[in-house]
Order: sequence, then C-alpha cells, then structure tokens
Amino acid sequence: MIIVMKQGSQDKEIVEISKVLESLGLGVHISKGTERTIIGVLGDKRVLSDVPLELMPGVEKLVPIVESYKLAGKTFKPEPSVIDVQGVKIGGKELVMMAGPCAVESREQIMEAAFAVKKSGAQFLRGGAFKPRTSPYAFQGLEEEGLKLLKEAKDATGLLIISEVTSEKAVETADKYVDMFQIGARNVQNFQLLREVGRSQKPVLYKRGPSTTIDEWLNAAEYIMSEGNHNVILCERGIRTFETATRNTLDISAVPVVKTSSHLPIIVDPSHAAGKSQYILPLSKAAIAAGADGLIIEVHPNPRCALSDAAQQLKPDDFNNLCKVISEIAEIIGREFHYGE
Amino acid sequence: MIIVMKQGSQDKEIVEISKVLESLGLGVHISKGTERTIIGVLGDKRVLSDVPLELMPGVEKLVPIVESYKLAGKTFKPEPSVIDVQGVKIGGKELVMMAGPCAVESREQIMEAAFAVKKSGAQFLRGGAFKPRTSPYAFQGLEEEGLKLLKEAKDATGLLIISEVTSEKAVETADKYVDMFQIGARNVQNFQLLREVGRSQKPVLYKRGPSTTIDEWLNAAEYIMSEGNHNVILCERGIRTFETATRNTLDISAVPVVKTSSHLPIIVDPSHAAGKSQYILPLSKAAIAAGADGLIIEVHPNPRCALSDAAQQLKPDDFNNLCKVISEIAEIIGREFHYGE
Amino acid sequence: MIIVMKQGSQDKEIVEISKVLESLGLGVHISKGTERTIIGVLGDKRVLSDVPLELMPGVEKLVPIVESYKLAGKTFKPEPSVIDVQGVKIGGKELVMMAGPCAVESREQIMEAAFAVKKSGAQFLRGGAFKPRTSPYAFQGLEEEGLKLLKEAKDATGLLIISEVTSEKAVETADKYVDMFQIGARNVQNFQLLREVGRSQKPVLYKRGPSTTIDEWLNAAEYIMSEGNHNVILCERGIRTFETATRNTLDISAVPVVKTSSHLPIIVDPSHAAGKSQYILPLSKAAIAAGADGLIIEVHPNPRCALSDAAQQLKPDDFNNLCKVISEIAEIIGREFHYGE
Amino acid sequence: MIIVMKQGSQDKEIVEISKVLESLGLGVHISKGTERTIIGVLGDKRVLSDVPLELMPGVEKLVPIVESYKLAGKTFKPEPSVIDVQGVKIGGKELVMMAGPCAVESREQIMEAAFAVKKSGAQFLRGGAFKPRTSPYAFQGLEEEGLKLLKEAKDATGLLIISEVTSEKAVETADKYVDMFQIGARNVQNFQLLREVGRSQKPVLYKRGPSTTIDEWLNAAEYIMSEGNHNVILCERGIRTFETATRNTLDISAVPVVKTSSHLPIIVDPSHAAGKSQYILPLSKAAIAAGADGLIIEVHPNPRCALSDAAQQLKPDDFNNLCKVISEIAEIIGREFHYGE
Repeated sequence: MIIVMKQGSQDKEIVEISKVLESLGLGVHISKGTERTIIGVLGDKRVLSDVPLELMPGVEKLVPIVESYKLAGKTFKPEPSVIDVQGVKIGGKELVMMAGPCAVESREQIMEAAFAVKKSGAQFLRGGAFKPRTSPYAFQGLEEEGLKLLKEAKDATGLLIISEVTSEKAVETADKYVDMFQIGARNVQNFQLLREVGRSQKPVLYKRGPSTTIDEWLNAAEYIMSEGNHNVILCERGIRTFETATRNTLDISAVPVVKTSSHLPIIVDPSHAAGKSQYILPLSKAAIAAGADGLIIEVHPNPRCALSDAAQQLKPDDFNNLCKVISEIAEIIGREFHYGE
Repeated sequence: MIIVMKQGSQDKEIVEISKVLESLGLGVHISKGTERTIIGVLGDKRVLSDVPLELMPGVEKLVPIVESYKLAGKTFKPEPSVIDVQGVKIGGKELVMMAGPCAVESREQIMEAAFAVKKSGAQFLRGGAFKPRTSPYAFQGLEEEGLKLLKEAKDATGLLIISEVTSEKAVETADKYVDMFQIGARNVQNFQLLREVGRSQKPVLYKRGPSTTIDEWLNAAEYIMSEGNHNVILCERGIRTFETATRNTLDISAVPVVKTSSHLPIIVDPSHAAGKSQYILPLSKAAIAAGADGLIIEVHPNPRCALSDAAQQLKPDDFNNLCKVISEIAEIIGREFHYGE
Repeated sequence: MIIVMKQGSQDKEIVEISKVLESLGLGVHISKGTERTIIGVLGDKRVLSDVPLELMPGVEKLVPIVESYKLAGKTFKPEPSVIDVQGVKIGGKELVMMAGPCAVESREQIMEAAFAVKKSGAQFLRGGAFKPRTSPYAFQGLEEEGLKLLKEAKDATGLLIISEVTSEKAVETADKYVDMFQIGARNVQNFQLLREVGRSQKPVLYKRGPSTTIDEWLNAAEYIMSEGNHNVILCERGIRTFETATRNTLDISAVPVVKTSSHLPIIVDPSHAAGKSQYILPLSKAAIAAGADGLIIEVHPNPRCALSDAAQQLKPDDFNNLCKVISEIAEIIGREFHYGE
Repeated sequence: MIIVMKQGSQDKEIVEISKVLESLGLGVHISKGTERTIIGVLGDKRVLSDVPLELMPGVEKLVPIVESYKLAGKTFKPEPSVIDVQGVKIGGKELVMMAGPCAVESREQIMEAAFAVKKSGAQFLRGGAFKPRTSPYAFQGLEEEGLKLLKEAKDATGLLIISEVTSEKAVETADKYVDMFQIGARNVQNFQLLREVGRSQKPVLYKRGPSTTIDEWLNAAEYIMSEGNHNVILCERGIRTFETATRNTLDISAVPVVKTSSHLPIIVDPSHAAGKSQYILPLSKAAIAAGADGLIIEVHPNPRCALSDAAQQLKPDDFNNLCKVISEIAEIIGREFHYGE
C-alpha cells in the first residue's frame, strides 16, 4: 500500500505515521516527490484493516498496490485449483455441466428433467428448493420437500445435486440432500451465510452479485475460505448495466480476469445473464471459448408450464443440441466434454 | 398489462391466450394494429405471477402498464404515511435526524456520541452492533453487547435507537433493545430477512441496494408490508455507477420519484453515498432541499480512532453545524427541524 | 405505441387525443381497464416525432411497442445484409479480420504491420490517422500523411484500408485513401458526422458508444442509412460499467441481440473492450463463438514503442496465433476464416 | 506516478526502466517491498504521455498518484475562478440562471420565452439552433435563422445568449450571435470541437457526458483551456445508470467534488437529468443547496406545443415560482439571486 501525503504535508506528520506503521510491525519507505511525499508500506497489510490511516494529519489518500484478498489469489496458490466432487473434477481439462429447472416443482418434473440432462452429458442436476422471488406473491419453492425430490433424482440417475441455500437454516436442511451448495447473486455479500457454508467442507458454487466488482467478489470469497472451506467454484451470471435488451450484461471478460487473478475455477450461468432462452446458446459457446470451466443452465421439460423464470429455461432438445456444440468447441480449445450418456 | 403478439401471429394463438386469461378471471381486450396485434389484460395481474404467458405461441413480449407493487404504492394509499415512533413522527412536517457511529465500539464511545448528537437535535441514535464488513479480517461488531450499550445510551439520553439486523437471529436479539430495525443495502433482497421484520410491528428503515431500481425496491418492500408491518421508512444511500470520485452515486432524484410513486417516507444517508466526510454537508443540504423526510448520518466522537468506515464519519462539531444549517433550510421549504436540545 | 391514461382520466381527454391522432392519419384503439384506460395507436408513428402527446391532459405515459428504427431493423429487411467491399464480403459465411496498429506512426511501422497481418489472413489493414486522445498533450495522429502511408501499404499488400474519421473535413480527406470509414465510439451520436458518411456510398464501420443502448445505436444508424448509405457494419467495443478490471465491459450479448433485431453485420473489437493485451485472445474466441461476423484487432510490430494504447496492442506472433485459433473455431460453428496467406 | 513491478521482477529490469525515466529528465525512487518492488516517478509526467512504460519487461501496472489534468485543477489555480460575461459574474456570490426553450422555434415563441424568463430574474436566454436529435426524422433546429432570433431577443430584453454548437462550422456561425457557447453532452469528447471553442475567448458552458467520469471531464476541459480559453463553466446534467425512473441520474455529488478538485464554476441542468418536468423544482433546490453556481433550465411558453423534449420543459409560471424559491435558499446558504426584474 502507498500513502499519498497532501501537498505541503509536514515532516512531523510523516514521522507520526511511520511510528504507527512500525508499531504494527510494518516496514516504511518514504519517497519525496516534487509535488507530494509518498510512503510505501511494507508487510502484511491485514493488520491495518481497523486502523484509519486516511484520517491521520497530512494524509491525502491510500492507494492499494496488491489485491486485498489472500486465499483466493494466485499469490497464495499459483496453480489452478481442481475441485473434486465425488469424482467429478471441476477446473481440470473436463468441462462441467450443471442443468435442470429453475425450481423443483414436482416429482414428475424433476425426474423428467434429470433423465433429460443426464442423457445430454450433464454431471450435475440443479433445481431450486428455496426460491428468492422478486414478488412475495410468486411461488417460493418447495423447500425440504424439493430437496428430497432432488435426492430421489440423484438416486435414480447418478447425477450430483446442486441447490441454492438462502439462510443458515436452509444450509442445515440442504446439507443432508445436496452435493454442492449454491450461493445466489442476491447473497453475494450475505457474510453470515458465507461463513455458514465456509464451516462445511461441501463445495460451494458462489455467484457474483449484479453489482459486485471482481475484486469485491474475490474478497468476499475470503469469508468462505477463511472458515476452512477452500472448495469454492465461482460463477459469473451477468452484471447490472444501463443496457435493457438482456436481463443482465454477461461480463464475459470476468472469465479471463478471474483466471489471471485467482486459482479458483469459474463457470458461467448464461440463463440468468440473458433472461431469454434464445440467447443461451450463443452465450454458452462464448463462455466456453473464453475459457470457462463449465456452465450452469436452466432446463425445463416443459418451459411453458414453469412456475418461475419461464422465459429463460431451455427445452431438453435445445439443451441436447447445446451440449453437442459445446463438446465440439471443447475439443478445439484443448478441453473436453462427454456429450451424451 | 399488454401482451404484444409477434408479427404474423395467428387468430388461434390469440384465442388460446384469451382462454387462459379468462379462466383466471381476467378481462381481455384485443387490438389489431398494422404491424402487430396487442392484447390488453384487465384485472388484478397478481394471479399471473406464476403463469409464463411470454412462452405461449405467438407472444413477442409482455409490457407492464401499471407498477407491480401494491401496498407501497399511491394507488393503494394516496396520502403520505406518517410513521409514529414513540412520539417522533417520520414523514410529517418535522424532519428526523438519525446519527451516531458506524459501529458501537465501547460504552465511552457510544455515550459520548449519544450526548453529542442529542445536543444538536437528533431524535435517533444509530450504531452498528452486527457489522457486515467487506473483509472477514475486519472488526465485525459487538453484537448483543453492543445492543445493550445502545439501550444504556437510550436510558441516559432519551434518544430512540436504530440498529442494523443482518439475520433472523439478529432480529430476535435486537428486538429487545432497539426502537427501529435497519435493513442494510446488502440485504435489500434478502427476502427471508424482510419477512422476518415484516412479522414484527417495529418500524423498519429499509435501505436501497446499490444496484436496485426504485421499482424493485418498492416491490421488495412488499415482502415486509405483506406480512402486516406497514411501518416502513425508505432510505436512499447511493447507487453503483462508473463514477469513482465518491463511494456510490447519491441518486438525489430518488427523493421526488419516491414521493410521486409511494406514500412511504424517505430519508437520505449521505455518509455511505459519499464515503468521504467532506461531502456530507453539501449532500445533506441537497437531500433536505429535494424533499427528504430526514437524514441518517455517521458521527463519531473521534473519527480517527473509529474501527470502521473512519473516512466518512463526522466529528460532533461538524454534525452540530450541519444540524444548524438544516434547520435553516427546513424553514425555507416549509418543514422544521429543532436544532439544539 | 400505447398511450396510458392517468387514473380517473376523463372521456373528453380521450376524445381530444383521438382527434389529434386521427388528424395525423393514425388509427386509434381504446381499451378501458379496471384501473386505467389505454389508447393503442395504429400506423406509422414517425409522424408523431414532434408531437408532445405526453403533455396532453390525462396522459400518464407513452409505451413504445415496436422499436423506433426502421432501416436497420428486421421488419424492413428480414434477411441478413452481406456487404461487399471490393470482393470481401462482410456478414456472409466468411469471417472478416481487420488488424493493424492503433495509430499510423511511420512508413516502416505501417508497412511491417501490413505485411504481418496480411500473412495471418487479415483482409483489412486498420490504422488511425486522426486520433482522438484523452489528453491534448498526447500524439494526435499523422492526419493526411498517415492516410497516404495507409494507401501505400494497400498498394504493397492488397489489403483493404479502414481508418477513423472524426470530422466532416476528415471524411473529405479520407475519402481519397480508405476503403471503409470508421466512426469511433466517441462519435456514436455525432449526427452531423453520421450524415456526412451517409452521403457517401463507402462502407462504414460504426462503433457503439460506451454508454449507448443497442436500441439507441440502431436508431442512430438511421442517420447514416436515411441519407442513402446502407453499407453499415456495426462494431461492439465494450460499454461503461462499474467494473474496473477491464477498460470497458465487452457486451458479448450484443452479438445475438443485434442478430435478432437487425439485418446489419456486427463485428467485435476486443482490444478497446479489454484494454489489456492478455485478454484479447479469449475475448476474440468468445466473440466468434457468439456469432460475430469478424474482429477488429490492434496489432503493432513493436507494441513497446507504440505512441498510443500500447497496452492493448498485440504482437504479430500473438495475432498470428489468434488467427489460427479463430480459423479452427470458425469451422466448428459453420463459418470460415482463411488463416495464413 | 508509481510503477508496480511484477512479483519476481529482476534488477536489470528495474535498471532499464530507471534509465528511460532519467533520460526524460524524471526522478526515480525505488522501494523494495516484501512482495513487490515499486518505482516512484518524480517530475512532470506529461513527458510520459507517449511512452508505453506498462509494456517494459517486469512491469505489472502503473498507478497515478496525482490527477492528470493541470489547467482545470486546484494545484494550477487554488482560488475559485469567477468568469465575467459582460458584467454577469459566474462563480461568485451571485447565482446565474440560464433559461429558455429547448429549441428556438419561431420569433413569437422565443420572444415570449425571453420576456418570461427575464421577468423571473434569469440573466441568460438559452435556445437551441443546432439540435442533435436521437431520430433523423425529428426537428433538427432552425440553425442560423434561430441564432438571429436569439439575437433579436437579446436586443429586446438585454438577456445574454447561450446556444449549443455542434460542429466547427456551427462555432463560426454562432460566434456572431451568442455570448456563450454550449458544448453538449454528446460532444464532451469531440476534441476537434473543444479545440475550436478553445481558440475563441468566448465563455464556454461545457456539459459532462452521460458516461464521463469527473476526472475524464476535467481532463477533456484541458482541450479547451490549453488553446488559451480559460473561460470554462462546467455543467452537470446527469449520468447513465441502470435506473430508469429518470432520463439520467443527476450526480449531485459532482458539485462538491468539482469544487474540491477544480477552480472552475459548475452549474446544474436539472431538465436533462430528470427528463420530466415534475422533478425539476426539487432537483433545482438540491443543486443550489449542494453549492452549484447556477442552473440552466428549459422553459417554454407552451410546452404542449414544443417541437422537442416537451416533457421536460417548464411553464413560465412554474419557472417563476422556482426562481422565487431559489432566491430564498440562496440567502440561507450565503449566496444571492435577484428574483424578479
């Protein structure tokens, strides 16, 4: 970190700051420029998280030089993490495909969806049991009943299960049924919840928030990882911008940016980014081409009857076609995806 | 709501849609244009919240005509709501001032802050006991111990207490100590939490999220209000934009927009919007001039020692000056604020 | 278009509006709902562009139903446009690659760049002669001298030439030397300039502005097309968002959205979107996978010596590798690109 | 400026960079941290504007320490600039009010508007003669004929005239008729045009672009000022965000931010920010309370007949009321505005 002093700052102010830094075990490096003096701070800046240096006399501003996250960063672990979920490896050569309906609605629906996505090559079945909906009058999910149905689908198909958790209580309930927790975009900075899944060793699919910078996202991942759970898979799902043609703006650059800054795997959710089923195929192809480790896609046996997010769910046939195309692109770029059963 | 049909949609598609709508008790009004047919839907659209009309054959898109929130809207209640918190009226002629440190740190600190803000005319003492912080290594709040200190400060000064709740458990704990719950920006769509405070009758200060539209905010308020708690005070605190000179961009227009669309009171938080103490006075003046019903401001007896958000906390003297200026502007615009004890 | 009337609007207000519409030759369709009356307007709404309907008594708001652009839209021309530039077809099966330095700096530089990009398969040489730079103290381009050097490079290599025009005078000068005009992001709504290139028949590469919605962009294209020049190629180059890890946020969804709404070809500029050379390859792959008709990429024989935008220019070897990868992806998705000479 | 070296950068790389800097007359200050080496650069960094330091071996990134604009900055001129336009002082104690229709439409209209705004206390008459409109089919302005009418209105009322210029040719024409040029938001980075008005000594009202940061805006002002014209008045008119309740989001914080960073006066345009006439009064009050030096407001004798931007133009009576309220707020905050003739 660099401390930039105000024009005309005095020597005693600089001495004062140096004392504070040294008392915390940090090194100090002073550089007097023509317009400003700057102070370089050497050492582990985490000891400064509760010290308001910016208010000390003479200080104009603080400039961070290295990213503030540790456990998610390449400095902590330079080689990419590969997360093993009961034999399915996320972040390795093979791409991962998670698919299923927005919400679990009934045994028939989830079974049909499970067999369909399995058939195309998906390794994970997704399905919401706790649904955060914009309107309180809309369908809110089957809760534990939904989780049981997911477990049944797992037993029938061998698919791994991922489902969103929205509260500490939901984590406790879901723990019995799912193979991976999902933290949704609305909870990206629900630190209580992040800590809760951090205390588990179960893998966590951790979605970016619609107005979270990549830096903030990786910082918040620290809430999960600092509790001991390093099995975090990042998921880009679109950010909020002024453009209204799509529900959110898929930040495709997040894929290479995360690959440069972090060792964690990253997958892409084109369904929530686009909000419209006709854009899911092109965005999926783009995501894989950009280097994503996989996709999470909403598939519904009969989208026209879906109880939530109907417009963005794919039909099984369209999903099957998508998987085929993805397997072809995967080969070109040195990855692989086993299309079909 | 209007259903816009695709170019070349067929009569039987229109008949099909009409049947669905009529089966739900809605009226139908068909209008054939030169390029498209549109279908007007008459009646209470809430019955449609789980019906994916946009996927029916021939449909191009749905266009909402009236806002989807009910309880927070002017249609539901045309006259402004005035919320009475033990005699302090929010949304009436008198402005409300909530002030205090970002976080409760110690008995000395909160007592000193309480007496200081009381002296300038504040009616509420604010202070965080549960602190959502960006880094897990930063100070996270004193939790119940902090709430007890707030209660002590109330007993000593007569100030009402407002404090943030971040989980269902926190609501339960805080209920014993505070006079008003605060829902922070990060939890604007934590529907579980909104419902929880909705089940109480205690007033709720409900902050806008950094990427929430005003329409989404009023819709989410429905989660609190539909549980029976209509004592909601909105709080604008800045939105996320590309501008980096301030922490967030205060959306000052939200004040007149909310006054036009909703009967709920709205106050402004210039501290989190600006992120820098030198901008708090001008933004506070602007907020009141624009018609806000009050302000919530971070004040710390010694900002340089603050354990969180140091850069944006005002010193008691600066806060005192702010209250004086606000009382003068209030008079000009037909409001009032009692500066001083 | 739909006119939504205020709650409690009166019959005589509706009659008044109907008269205005009918006097302009438009059809009127009135629909009385439970809460509001809405008026459907039938016919060509362009006659309304100077009629302030929103101010007529009783009107709450206007809701557009179909997009307001005509010439760029699919309704006007359903099949995709293929633009032929001296034998190179843009928007057909073959992908187009435009490459070269940010700015023309010297004969040596542009010749070296031209032979390099030609060797990898590019059909167009790009190079700025009129450079809009953020600081007035930075290099502003060689102007006509630069255009002459581009022409020399064309004569030597057979590459087609594209260069940015920034004023009416620049259009006049460039007309003698280039095969395609480029309108840069800063001039996306410089209507005077758009008209000027519209009066030519020379193809125009028309970049989206950093804060232009796709709808506004297609509307502004109307300024070029309504003057008679339909040879417009759209270029997505990133939009402004709160994310700072990249210079702009590449809106990859713009590719399928434009393909759905417009018949015009669209290419992608990953260099300006990313602002960092290490992200250009993954973004290029993503763009082609998403369905773009080509790419425009900054390539400099010696980026370390570049006089502008050094950080985002590729070295010829990296560009060569990019072209190879693109040719492979092209094949998978049913397009083609002739890598190598 | 600080150069941050990559982890593991080598001594010879640091030596190489130091040589380049020293050859340009800059000082060098090296600081070796635990993770990175950083190099402080001392002296006038403008010599670096064409040197791609970020591409030298071992460099990770460049971090600017002081703002890059000079002439618009407080370092160049610490005291506020007061710009005298024929006796009307902008940036002093007295507030300036510029008002009039969006576009000049006819002699009757502009005369009526002029007398009306004069009566309420405005010092400037605004009126567009060159109108950049989103659609090419909409009214584009009366051009020179409109300027002549503005001049007539000046002769009749004594009001000063401000009008937008959109091209070099328009500057030449307008120079004969207006007292202040306006550069509109769409031309904020039309550097050719900025230079053109920079070569005049006529004051320039320089609007911020909808996606321009304050830093970029002050940098672009350098294009005007470096040509010798220091009579620049900044104008905040709203930025583009995801919020759709208003046409743009008025960045009210820009007022105190500019006052902190620059010596130039700043006024606010609530009409374009809001896009709806009912929000103009509250936003005007907020702007003045926040410290703006004046306002520019659209006023039309008969908004319902306006040929452009009808929804955001005030009626003369509403403007008169606004001026009265502003004069009262002015007094409270130590400014003054002479309401009435």
